[in-house]
Amino acid sequence: MSNSASFRQLCRQGKLDTPTPGLALGFVQANLVVLPYSLAFEFLLFCQRNPKPCPILDVTEVGDFETKLIAPGADIRTDLPRYKIFHHGELITETTDIRSYWRNDLVGFLIGCSFSFENAMLNAGLSVRHIEEKKNVPMYQTNIECIPTQKFSSPLVVSMRPLPANQIVRAVEVTSRYYKAHGSPIHIGNPETIGIKDLGKPDYGDAVTIKDNEIPVFWACGVTTQTAILRAKPELAITHSPGYMFISDLQDESLTF
Amino acid sequence: MSNSASFRQLCRQGKLDTPTPGLALGFVQANLVVLPYSLAFEFLLFCQRNPKPCPILDVTEVGDFETKLIAPGADIRTDLPRYKIFHHGELITETTDIRSYWRNDLVGFLIGCSFSFENAMLNAGLSVRHIEEKKNVPMYQTNIECIPTQKFSSPLVVSMRPLPANQIVRAVEVTSRYYKAHGSPIHIGNPETIGIKDLGKPDYGDAVTIKDNEIPVFWACGVTTQTAILRAKPELAITHSPGYMFISDLQDESLTF
Repeated sequence: MSNSASFRQLCRQGKLDTPTPGLALGFVQANLVVLPYSLAFEFLLFCQRNPKPCPILDVTEVGDFETKLIAPGADIRTDLPRYKIFHHGELITETTDIRSYWRNDLVGFLIGCSFSFENAMLNAGLSVRHIEEKKNVPMYQTNIECIPTQKFSSPLVVSMRPLPANQIVRAVEVTSRYYKAHGSPIHIGNPETIGIKDLGKPDYGDAVTIKDNEIPVFWACGVTTQTAILRAKPELAITHSPGYMFISDLQDESLTF
Repeated sequence: MSNSASFRQLCRQGKLDTPTPGLALGFVQANLVVLPYSLAFEFLLFCQRNPKPCPILDVTEVGDFETKLIAPGADIRTDLPRYKIFHHGELITETTDIRSYWRNDLVGFLIGCSFSFENAMLNAGLSVRHIEEKKNVPMYQTNIECIPTQKFSSPLVVSMRPLPANQIVRAVEVTSRYYKAHGSPIHIGNPETIGIKDLGKPDYGDAVTIKDNEIPVFWACGVTTQTAILRAKPELAITHSPGYMFISDLQDESLTF
């Protein structure tokens, strides 16, 4: 059994309920969004129009819960450590198993995640502050609007990693290869330019230390899909809990040019 | 009026009914597929699963005929020089105006085209034989199956450009940047490896000269979508006529990394 499959098995058996950063290193982790088929075209189109925050890695067949392309045999109803259930855009509960919510009209979308390029940053000798400080990555809502569809719209949500000036060009080079995992940064420098007032108060995740010689660098973030769901208020939506990702069988390198 | 808009205007006025290679140089040209909304999710998913032959550039809103993202103000019912109408997978007619076929449930998909990277090849001093010989590019059906969806499947269709050995690496480099216009080649060398028996008998387009020192190089081709339509037999499908493309307002460079 591959390293990735063994982690999914632990989730399925109810033995793993922790955030997944650092687990199954080198395997691609993914955001999950589950929606009724009636919204599937619009949501896929929203992702297609906004590939930096929402790079699609796999879409399950209608009613099917197997990720045939990125993890054959996996079951998205049980193989993530933790889920959020939304009714009409409102969070109803968090749970470790969504079999009782499953319906024959549901479609699962698996979306790339920045963990893939963070491994590459570490391998290139670049700082990844929230990993150094054992925190969740800080995420912020920006004043940049995604390209909408008729039913889905969202402000772009970004993650932030502070870097010294002499590491920034290399960080652009290293991460831009990972175009299916958010790719290159969307902004470097002044947070106010993109509508962020206080880096010390992230909208999601944890604040991290920014040293005197460091500049904040911002990447598009998959949490954008959750904001889109809060706005669209579908009768049912299921997502992973932030940080509790789906671990696929893909290798990080498969998300690069 | 931009160069691209003026060509679309000529089409709309019924004054342009020629293939579009070489027209509005530097502007992105696109394949068109129009399908009923009932098939839109499946077709978008087929394209998403097969981005090399089917790189999506724009998708119109249901019932709308304006390409809001890549050519605001354009009308896909009139602004291409020539169209094909398919009923249940069978070619019914070719026409220069599809307004009488339009319905409120139709969705238009605009898909990248190799003309974008051919300009880049020429700029890099590489041979593009069918342009030298003033022919249509030769296209072949391969034995490579695209990743299917429940309703759409297709063998990969490829275009072929012969190159001397010392130009092949450069051709890979130059074209791979154009990831929204089929990108890097899918095969270099022996045609039989991908199921092509006779380069002198292309399935679409024209045969071109292959010189003694030249090796055939194969790129994924947007005609793959037409094969998928022939197989799926939707009650209605409309496409451009091969070579009679949609001219967008995008610059070729916008399709690169």
